[in-house]
Amino acid sequence: MSVITKLDTPAMNRSQITSINVELFNVPLDEVLNDAKHGDHTHFELILCTITCADGTQGVGYTYTGGKGGRAIYSLLNDELTPFLLGKDASCITHLWEEMQYHLHYIGRGGLVSFAISAVDIALWDIHCKVLKQPLWKVAGGCSDRVNCYAGGIDLNFSTEKLLSNIQGYLDNGFQAVKIKVGKEDYREDVARVAAVRNLIGPDATFMVDANYSLTVNKAIKFAQAIEQYDITWFEEPTIPDDYAGFAHIADKINIPLAMGENLHTVYEFNQAIAQAKLGFLQPDASNIGGITGWLAVATMAYANNLPVCSHGMHELHVSLMASQPNAGYLEVHSFPIDRYTTHPLKLENGKAVAPSTPGVGVEFKSELLTPYLVKHS
Amino acid sequence: MSVITKLDTPAMNRSQITSINVELFNVPLDEVLNDAKHGDHTHFELILCTITCADGTQGVGYTYTGGKGGRAIYSLLNDELTPFLLGKDASCITHLWEEMQYHLHYIGRGGLVSFAISAVDIALWDIHCKVLKQPLWKVAGGCSDRVNCYAGGIDLNFSTEKLLSNIQGYLDNGFQAVKIKVGKEDYREDVARVAAVRNLIGPDATFMVDANYSLTVNKAIKFAQAIEQYDITWFEEPTIPDDYAGFAHIADKINIPLAMGENLHTVYEFNQAIAQAKLGFLQPDASNIGGITGWLAVATMAYANNLPVCSHGMHELHVSLMASQPNAGYLEVHSFPIDRYTTHPLKLENGKAVAPSTPGVGVEFKSELLTPYLVKHS
Ligand SMILES: [Mg+2]
Ligand SMILES: [Mg+2]
Repeated sequence: MSVITKLDTPAMNRSQITSINVELFNVPLDEVLNDAKHGDHTHFELILCTITCADGTQGVGYTYTGGKGGRAIYSLLNDELTPFLLGKDASCITHLWEEMQYHLHYIGRGGLVSFAISAVDIALWDIHCKVLKQPLWKVAGGCSDRVNCYAGGIDLNFSTEKLLSNIQGYLDNGFQAVKIKVGKEDYREDVARVAAVRNLIGPDATFMVDANYSLTVNKAIKFAQAIEQYDITWFEEPTIPDDYAGFAHIADKINIPLAMGENLHTVYEFNQAIAQAKLGFLQPDASNIGGITGWLAVATMAYANNLPVCSHGMHELHVSLMASQPNAGYLEVHSFPIDRYTTHPLKLENGKAVAPSTPGVGVEFKSELLTPYLVKHS
Repeated sequence: MSVITKLDTPAMNRSQITSINVELFNVPLDEVLNDAKHGDHTHFELILCTITCADGTQGVGYTYTGGKGGRAIYSLLNDELTPFLLGKDASCITHLWEEMQYHLHYIGRGGLVSFAISAVDIALWDIHCKVLKQPLWKVAGGCSDRVNCYAGGIDLNFSTEKLLSNIQGYLDNGFQAVKIKVGKEDYREDVARVAAVRNLIGPDATFMVDANYSLTVNKAIKFAQAIEQYDITWFEEPTIPDDYAGFAHIADKINIPLAMGENLHTVYEFNQAIAQAKLGFLQPDASNIGGITGWLAVATMAYANNLPVCSHGMHELHVSLMASQPNAGYLEVHSFPIDRYTTHPLKLENGKAVAPSTPGVGVEFKSELLTPYLVKHS
């Protein structure tokens, strides 16, 4: 048949990328959120990348920021990656991932380029899952469709009263694990907040703290020793993510496992952090580690190093990735409510987050909700 | 006097930043240049950042790329850093450098953000030197106004005949040191080219090779062992810049010092590379290591580790930085002729590059030459 003949010719390959559409949204938060190092968050930026193949299959990928750099990511997607990808075979995901890394290597090696590659990679996985007619949690590993999770607040500027009522809200919504920000000027204030939260949630709930790399190594040790009595599951980013030796020193001195990952942008950075920083939990973010391909690579490295893999941000996507893995730790349910703008807001059952069962990566945006926040589109 | 009163009020501080102008140029090369990993170069991108202070002092900073990412850098400068910097005190350079790093940290930690910060930092140093009425080589250290240099070709796709005539051109122009690209499919072809070049330049000239991280560790060892007999001063980027352990293994096995730096974008990456990769030469590039502040930090780290500091690219600026330092190695005179568009093209005397003596960083662009290549401006 002539149709088959056409599909067999390379130029008409069904999975050939025929168009890429990029959109940048600046989405307001309900209230100003603050942490120890990034200051006030009033918006998050959402960058969508929609890839269409010759057979009409469409995949949607995305990345996000805390409010800065979205226009530069838009440029990397629109000006650099779109011309590079048009005409290529969307089904060769690992190949395209590697090709994008080296196409932009001189201005890349992680950093902002990883955000742009992530959006493309997620779109390619969306296509892949749709072609297979399978949900991401199955395609990525299939261990389970649900995973332990925790609510992570960006709550450093909340009064203790508001902090506690916020935490109570998480418990009321079914969460059995919570994380708070630390990094107050006087660390004893953090200790008091930790004590108050543990008192509220009771002895059985899981509880983590996150300093957003704001502490010196010595202050981190002092603080951690003071909160050990409150049964803390992990201490996230005590000091700058570059100081692997500092992390190792902290780990040697305290009895709380360390966690890091949201600021590591290449598999090589994770490789070095695993080897040197004595981490207890890895927290790759598919929006900045090179998408699903990058996240799964880190999950595999975690597995081989006897470590649980966790996540940072974009829980509506990570729920499927985390659930799929044998060494899943705790899914972060982040304060940026990206899932509010999708058809599958996060669902909890008995304290666990449940992955969508629809074919694709399980994140479909409601354009009518996002359109008011559109900044740029290609 | 009323003028003095006005200057004393914070709002009228003479060094307050009152305007920032950003320009992106896409400048064609005379011929297509090719290396082992970045492929063909047909243009370089030049991004200029002009900062004006309340007293009218103007500084010009810049960064460049091999042809990709310029628009994203433009966005980081125009959309993120300009609003952040307006009104701030241009004379607090280290403070602003640190503030910029953390302002963009979530989308940064090196990578593309380092290119944007570099352009700003160089402009701030230009202002600083102009206020002092001193040339950069004095302000940055003052060790000398001249430095050893070499001509670095992007010549992997040149036939051996053209390679040799190109090298002969360098010698005719007064160079006493040269570097060629390696990384051919068959490494024996590289060995033959190295032999031919050494034969042409004679035993006294300094000779380096650069693989642009294209080799496996084992191939790098094999190749280096085969060219040791040709007195090679350094072997640059034998394998990927992320593999510090691989570099160390190569260094253990061969008798040629290793060099790296053009792909390291933070002082932390240099710190780890120094500690782990057994390098013989460091090659920071002020256009992507955070400007002059970043470059000088790496120069100091090199000094403390008994290593020569070298450079990559933008020789019209690095000549002053290299000359200023006690541990200066060899200035790379790069194949991107940025200096052709300035009032002080690089000057050689007895094989050494001579730093400009004009107040400022010594790089003044001729706008009439660049205007035809203007892509965007703020
Ligand atoms: Mg965190
Ligand atoms: Mg090089």
